[in-house]
Amino acid sequence: MTILGCGAALPLPGRNPTAQVVNVHEKQFLLDCGEGTQIALRHARVRMMRIDHIAISHLHGDHYLGLPGLISTFNLLGRTRALHVYGPPKLQEVLALHQEVGEGRLDFPLHFHPTQTEKRAVLFEDKSVVLESFPVRHRIPTTGFLLREKPKEPGVKREWVRDHDLVPSEILALKRGEDVVRPNGEAIPFSKACHPVPDARSYAFAADTKYWTAVAEFVQGVDVLYHEATFDDGMKARAEKTYHTTASQAAKVARDAGVGQLVIGHVSARYDSPSLHLDQARAIFPNVVAASDGQVIPVQAHL
Amino acid sequence: MTILGCGAALPLPGRNPTAQVVNVHEKQFLLDCGEGTQIALRHARVRMMRIDHIAISHLHGDHYLGLPGLISTFNLLGRTRALHVYGPPKLQEVLALHQEVGEGRLDFPLHFHPTQTEKRAVLFEDKSVVLESFPVRHRIPTTGFLLREKPKEPGVKREWVRDHDLVPSEILALKRGEDVVRPNGEAIPFSKACHPVPDARSYAFAADTKYWTAVAEFVQGVDVLYHEATFDDGMKARAEKTYHTTASQAAKVARDAGVGQLVIGHVSARYDSPSLHLDQARAIFPNVVAASDGQVIPVQAHL
Repeated sequence: MTILGCGAALPLPGRNPTAQVVNVHEKQFLLDCGEGTQIALRHARVRMMRIDHIAISHLHGDHYLGLPGLISTFNLLGRTRALHVYGPPKLQEVLALHQEVGEGRLDFPLHFHPTQTEKRAVLFEDKSVVLESFPVRHRIPTTGFLLREKPKEPGVKREWVRDHDLVPSEILALKRGEDVVRPNGEAIPFSKACHPVPDARSYAFAADTKYWTAVAEFVQGVDVLYHEATFDDGMKARAEKTYHTTASQAAKVARDAGVGQLVIGHVSARYDSPSLHLDQARAIFPNVVAASDGQVIPVQAHL
Repeated sequence: MTILGCGAALPLPGRNPTAQVVNVHEKQFLLDCGEGTQIALRHARVRMMRIDHIAISHLHGDHYLGLPGLISTFNLLGRTRALHVYGPPKLQEVLALHQEVGEGRLDFPLHFHPTQTEKRAVLFEDKSVVLESFPVRHRIPTTGFLLREKPKEPGVKREWVRDHDLVPSEILALKRGEDVVRPNGEAIPFSKACHPVPDARSYAFAADTKYWTAVAEFVQGVDVLYHEATFDDGMKARAEKTYHTTASQAAKVARDAGVGQLVIGHVSARYDSPSLHLDQARAIFPNVVAASDGQVIPVQAHL
């Protein structure tokens, strides 16, 4: 996961508005797209054209204003591959209006998929990954996003196929994770005949949201959770009023969800550094880091 | 005049899309507002809140996509002073839609003034400056802009008032630039009794446009002309087809208009440097510079 921007509503040099890109086996998922995201993608040397999926959490400017420009750039660069955009229904209207006033024509298909904030939903799924949205609580309809790697099918070791003359039905059983016992009583144990399978990883993104205990259920057990922490604990009342989260509250979500690592971001421009946030969060959940623009955060299985 | 961005349609690091700010006696006029303009304003240390007038040439993304974010930032920073935006009529719809989907409220008055491309028009005028638009020729309706300083009223030297006992009617005549001759034949010459008045300066901006001889009439005699030069002369056919200008063509406009200095910009991303453009332009009009992001260009009277 690469942080392209983790600033709050007021963009500042070095603190871009929200955007991040998650690379899942070279498929790039862009989560939010604040103003300047296309330049941040170039600075981070992300292969832009590999972005086929863009998910927008909500329609505050610092989370989507970079999208019309990015779409225009895709077009200028000669994109022909379909682009899938997920976001609140009105985003489609915004994109259509920008397209209309520029009197341009997109040379690639843009498929818009409206999100909803009533319940969890699968937005995209293929053989290796699932992209889900889940409700969060903000001033306007907003979702979080969750990317889950699918477990890889185990590979049967060549020498076992050869030495034991495995037949197709036996190989398929092993790939399903089953032990094989032959009619003659010979055992072909899955654990020995197959290569170990790496654990499937998961990553969740929740920005912007107020503190809401349901979020911990939606992101239960993810390996890395990015959660907004706009304010430090001293500004709890303001966080409540503005539908944002404090550092401790973000840490509580991480603890209650049993995540592997917490990444906090969207820190208000009033703070020069996130050190206070980190101290407050660590008291509740130790494995926490503060996001910074350009940072690459590996997502590793933790259970 | 400060160049905030002078890149072409494809933004690249160090080559922001079009935006520039012209400081006329501490009034800041923002001309175009591509994506990232608010960050460029911070880098250039421009006093953002002094921007009361924003003029948008046309509705291609690289000329206006930074505007919704800048307006949002003005609001976050507590602006109460009115903001005047000039641009194609559909821009108002775009701004209104962004405002609507974010469900925010502007705490300052935003006055929208539609531009038209049929003929020249005065967009704003006060005692020291006039902002005009003029037609250019691009794929979609587009204007250029012209800022003219108004001549300052001459100041009468104190010692002349004292030594010659000047009466109000005589002072007013001198301020109108007239010589005074008294009934007794005594002469009070304007050139001696008044401080020298600096020449009023003018600045014109024409991006994007194809080569069009009428532009030279609209910008006749300006001190500094910023004109797009997207392509070098070798790509004249492409310039024609895409409604852009070559380096020599920009220089011809400058020569035919008798401007003081030509600044070329909007150079296509295919060129690593504008040196070829400069060589071609200089062969026709010697006083030419290539714009670069962050550059401050003084506007000096040349006639």
